Amino acid sequence: MRPSGRDLSEMREVSIETGVTKHAEGSCLIRMGDTHVLCTASLEERVPPFIKGSGLGWVTAEYGMLPRSTSSRMRREAAAGKQGGRTVEIQRLIGRALRAGVDRVALGERQITIDCDVIQADGGTRCAAITGGWVALRLAVNKLMKTGAVVSDPLISEVAAVSCGVYAGQSVLDLDYPEDSDAGVDGNFILRGDGRLIEIQMSAEGSTFSRQQMGELMDLAEKGVGELVALQRSAVA
Amino acid sequence: MRPSGRDLSEMREVSIETGVTKHAEGSCLIRMGDTHVLCTASLEERVPPFIKGSGLGWVTAEYGMLPRSTSSRMRREAAAGKQGGRTVEIQRLIGRALRAGVDRVALGERQITIDCDVIQADGGTRCAAITGGWVALRLAVNKLMKTGAVVSDPLISEVAAVSCGVYAGQSVLDLDYPEDSDAGVDGNFILRGDGRLIEIQMSAEGSTFSRQQMGELMDLAEKGVGELVALQRSAVA
Amino acid sequence: MRPSGRDLSEMREVSIETGVTKHAEGSCLIRMGDTHVLCTASLEERVPPFIKGSGLGWVTAEYGMLPRSTSSRMRREAAAGKQGGRTVEIQRLIGRALRAGVDRVALGERQITIDCDVIQADGGTRCAAITGGWVALRLAVNKLMKTGAVVSDPLISEVAAVSCGVYAGQSVLDLDYPEDSDAGVDGNFILRGDGRLIEIQMSAEGSTFSRQQMGELMDLAEKGVGELVALQRSAVA
Amino acid sequence: MRPSGRDLSEMREVSIETGVTKHAEGSCLIRMGDTHVLCTASLEERVPPFIKGSGLGWVTAEYGMLPRSTSSRMRREAAAGKQGGRTVEIQRLIGRALRAGVDRVALGERQITIDCDVIQADGGTRCAAITGGWVALRLAVNKLMKTGAVVSDPLISEVAAVSCGVYAGQSVLDLDYPEDSDAGVDGNFILRGDGRLIEIQMSAEGSTFSRQQMGELMDLAEKGVGELVALQRSAVA
Amino acid sequence: MRPSGRDLSEMREVSIETGVTKHAEGSCLIRMGDTHVLCTASLEERVPPFIKGSGLGWVTAEYGMLPRSTSSRMRREAAAGKQGGRTVEIQRLIGRALRAGVDRVALGERQITIDCDVIQADGGTRCAAITGGWVALRLAVNKLMKTGAVVSDPLISEVAAVSCGVYAGQSVLDLDYPEDSDAGVDGNFILRGDGRLIEIQMSAEGSTFSRQQMGELMDLAEKGVGELVALQRSAVA
Amino acid sequence: MRPSGRDLSEMREVSIETGVTKHAEGSCLIRMGDTHVLCTASLEERVPPFIKGSGLGWVTAEYGMLPRSTSSRMRREAAAGKQGGRTVEIQRLIGRALRAGVDRVALGERQITIDCDVIQADGGTRCAAITGGWVALRLAVNKLMKTGAVVSDPLISEVAAVSCGVYAGQSVLDLDYPEDSDAGVDGNFILRGDGRLIEIQMSAEGSTFSRQQMGELMDLAEKGVGELVALQRSAVA
Repeated sequence: MRPSGRDLSEMREVSIETGVTKHAEGSCLIRMGDTHVLCTASLEERVPPFIKGSGLGWVTAEYGMLPRSTSSRMRREAAAGKQGGRTVEIQRLIGRALRAGVDRVALGERQITIDCDVIQADGGTRCAAITGGWVALRLAVNKLMKTGAVVSDPLISEVAAVSCGVYAGQSVLDLDYPEDSDAGVDGNFILRGDGRLIEIQMSAEGSTFSRQQMGELMDLAEKGVGELVALQRSAVA
Repeated sequence: MRPSGRDLSEMREVSIETGVTKHAEGSCLIRMGDTHVLCTASLEERVPPFIKGSGLGWVTAEYGMLPRSTSSRMRREAAAGKQGGRTVEIQRLIGRALRAGVDRVALGERQITIDCDVIQADGGTRCAAITGGWVALRLAVNKLMKTGAVVSDPLISEVAAVSCGVYAGQSVLDLDYPEDSDAGVDGNFILRGDGRLIEIQMSAEGSTFSRQQMGELMDLAEKGVGELVALQRSAVA
Repeated sequence: MRPSGRDLSEMREVSIETGVTKHAEGSCLIRMGDTHVLCTASLEERVPPFIKGSGLGWVTAEYGMLPRSTSSRMRREAAAGKQGGRTVEIQRLIGRALRAGVDRVALGERQITIDCDVIQADGGTRCAAITGGWVALRLAVNKLMKTGAVVSDPLISEVAAVSCGVYAGQSVLDLDYPEDSDAGVDGNFILRGDGRLIEIQMSAEGSTFSRQQMGELMDLAEKGVGELVALQRSAVA
Repeated sequence: MRPSGRDLSEMREVSIETGVTKHAEGSCLIRMGDTHVLCTASLEERVPPFIKGSGLGWVTAEYGMLPRSTSSRMRREAAAGKQGGRTVEIQRLIGRALRAGVDRVALGERQITIDCDVIQADGGTRCAAITGGWVALRLAVNKLMKTGAVVSDPLISEVAAVSCGVYAGQSVLDLDYPEDSDAGVDGNFILRGDGRLIEIQMSAEGSTFSRQQMGELMDLAEKGVGELVALQRSAVA
Repeated sequence: MRPSGRDLSEMREVSIETGVTKHAEGSCLIRMGDTHVLCTASLEERVPPFIKGSGLGWVTAEYGMLPRSTSSRMRREAAAGKQGGRTVEIQRLIGRALRAGVDRVALGERQITIDCDVIQADGGTRCAAITGGWVALRLAVNKLMKTGAVVSDPLISEVAAVSCGVYAGQSVLDLDYPEDSDAGVDGNFILRGDGRLIEIQMSAEGSTFSRQQMGELMDLAEKGVGELVALQRSAVA
Repeated sequence: MRPSGRDLSEMREVSIETGVTKHAEGSCLIRMGDTHVLCTASLEERVPPFIKGSGLGWVTAEYGMLPRSTSSRMRREAAAGKQGGRTVEIQRLIGRALRAGVDRVALGERQITIDCDVIQADGGTRCAAITGGWVALRLAVNKLMKTGAVVSDPLISEVAAVSCGVYAGQSVLDLDYPEDSDAGVDGNFILRGDGRLIEIQMSAEGSTFSRQQMGELMDLAEKGVGELVALQRSAVA
């Protein structure tokens, strides 16, 4: 029934390749099917003004799509002179999600910026960005701990995300682009590796959903995130 | 236990005053406690380029806060030269939510813009904007139907929104600013008058939540939206 | 002869309601007929860089119109990415006018920002903004004096403004929108409560005027400002 | 008493050199003492959208200062990414003033843009820009009439401007920079060659003025503009 | 003598991998040592306004660097709100260079946009972008010819570029980042596959050079481009 | 053969008038035929952040064209809200070129900004800007040396620039606008007064060139710059 022939609760093939750029403190290329996102972590020994002197660290994120990551070319945001509303929403989401897995006291007064750049898009880029972003973050924090700059591990648990939605009347896991453009109802679920919920964004464009469907989607999300966390663990091992 | 002395499932006092500006096709001032939002609906007999010629209508929204609607003065976005990320997120949410209650075929090729301007803020401005925005929309559509420009009612059901969150370990309804700034977990629930879900945005800044808590918050949201829909109905009667 | 039926030297009904927002140090809603402007005063214990260390205070103003304050919806300046030329002109005028009534030594090194937001427009918004802005300023200064932060009153005199113009060949006071859009010659007169002139901006779009007409308009302006100052005094009493 | 040794009602030496650039349809370099402004008129056979099809013409103006036209270097507005509030105010004033001398029906559906670029500044640049701008406009219109594109002269009368102010307690004509920076009260008076008033902008920064002073300043302005109009006439003869 | 141990006239190892993204009409990842640039060609059946109706085609380019392609993180240009001067210069250069190898009549009225995004930078990114950009262009044109949309081959010859400079007093080929940051004199040489010169940009920051050195650098450039063209040919074979 | 009737190696008439503005530390108006550029040097006793505390000075440049310096009016960059790509390229070039003639240690920690504003354009504006810019720089440095602020002359040699190109198949010196718009191949050559090369920018839009032609153009450039340097010397004598 799904365009890709997948089962309702079957994820796309996912791979996480680490160490893909020589400059960043942590990096990976995550592939969720044909969605490919390059994630890098950049460490700076300074924090934004609003927490200067607080002793707390900060994790933030930026998101971008290469102009031809999509089926038809998108205008380059740098040329347009600003980041679009969708970009701003997504990068705020990524940062907020990752911070939910961070002990900012343990991190100390330093900032890690996660850049998530979509090389090729086929649905679910923000979930791939969060899942891959956490891997880049983990690798950068490992470096900090190796040098002794940070003693107690500031990462409480993994953070991973997956999309679920109602496609052709059925609740399905990990929507690809053909499903995503057709689904009236879909959402992103962000969980920690210990199963706790961090963020849920369910929305229905031109449609609605019931509490029962909401329950089905959450079951799928828990299954999917479980698989992603396993992949994260082996990637950073 | 709540700073305001309210029960866990008790909303603030809500009032909706219609017809507050002489120019707009529909307008109201919604007060949810000390949160006051002016909502206007502006009708135009043209649609955005991407649906020109489709026969479909469009409902969109813009959101703003007066510089001194908040406890300390915020920089005016027009002076800053752009709308902040939060503003962009909120106005996209309002538009998406309201469209979920609209039959765009019945509306016909015309656009209604809902402007939501926060006069005074005390938490929950986006929920007030959606709830009041629907009232302004309803009034503007009524005008269209009275003139015969639109024959079949394009509004399928009411659309209303309420925030819920975990405050001091308890699930509470309709957070005001003191609660909101303290709650690690909170979210916005948008429902239709017929009880169908439109959008859920649960997020946890520096915290997490469980599926059981998610269930409690949804119960509260259904209660709160039920009360708001009753107020919407009497406001437009 | 006037569209509203008013006498040549008759102002619209004016009311000034104070204390309309709980956050601002001073606030009022001024209504000059159907022109409604919300004015707030925000106090900050810092001054712009160009007077830092001078011991002098600063009063500045910002002006905005809600998108549907006008007969047809205007584009939101925050969305357009900049304040238009008219907005910039008006807010510079308001700030300059109010400063003419302020003893900046007595105010001390602090800044008061007057925000004037037009809720509903029907001509004469800049005059309403100045007149209401002064009331907000007065209330904020009263607060400063009550706490003892300021000892000697920094407000020398009231500041109020009114528009006059030549409509259908006759000199008239306080133009409303139908008159304003028709008048070839009109201007704004800003005076202090003690009768001294602060600013005159007479201009003729597609027309001209004589020195005798200039004299008639000044007579009307003195009458109108006299009435406004009386209302200001009772509003802040 | 004046820093320059001039009498109270004595203008600076003024010269107007025409034909200073080979590309523009009309051009002049106006020198009012050490204030030098290059004015060009550019003709286009199209009008702004808001009057398309009306049969009416349009005259508009833009104003700029070379970065080192002033005593200390100013930031280039193109580099700053926007025109400042003062620039916007001035160029709107120049356009409005010049249009007051134009019969837009006789001009026909075409646009003339007057560019006023300050090469060297010593006070009174906006008045020099208006006075020189009219000369450039006259020369461009002459060209139109020579080719027969325009038959009836669209220029009703000359337009010229001069500043007056209260310096050291005395009303003086044509303020230079040392006077201007010291005068609490000053203004710009724009008149037509036939003596009719077009625009008056009197303002007092940190001061006030009386009706009697207003009369004295208007007397000076009429004298000054009379002299400027004579120079305009001989420049375009 | 060179930090990398290379001979004076030895290039870094270069590889060109084609078909790296499924959406673009042509794509490659070019690696010149540690400089990695992703190049995509996007075809549109429309041209910029200035050649509409001329029957001529257009080839243009855009350039960007991922924020962490460099040793320390650069600010994202989309977030900064504009493309920096260096970016604008480089993308104009790439477009101009590629057009020198295109018969725009044979291409017909369509546009090909070459996006060059630097994944990892180690000197010479603009040369890599031109060389890889041509490969993406060739592949996109091949597609056009296969479908019969274009009959006569619009690509006259290959276009490739290499940097040369004076490092430690010696003329060297293909500077990497450590050399580039140290060289007082360096430049980019763009040639066609048939040996004709397209563009030379020699510059000396804080230094100068002689005509003899200019000759040596041109000899090196001819050697380097010869090698690059051979690689381009086998990549697109 | 040339539109102007000049010989292949003949420059336009060049004049350099110094002291053209009373405010700048150095200034000149350079005329290369009908290309007129006003150059001013502004001295500031501070340097950009990236060299603060280094003891080194800085020379930078900005470039602009008056809107009607060209045959048809160009949009004012300040009004457009940004400097175009061509402007940015040119002003970076001017600054880089002038710095190649400066001993930044001898200059000491101060900045000189060269503003080059094109009053009238007829081809070769960037070369005129560099040649005139050096004169303004020389005059400003002379002032510094006269006051004793600078002891050892920081100007190593003159810096001048000329354009050369292939017009109608022939190598020609100093292209004017009619030649420039027709030449497939042209470039700018920047040399010091001692004959050393600083920068070469040869480019071919829709054409190519050979090494032999490159040699001819360099011969012409050396001849042209020789003449310009002689004029510079007599201008500052």
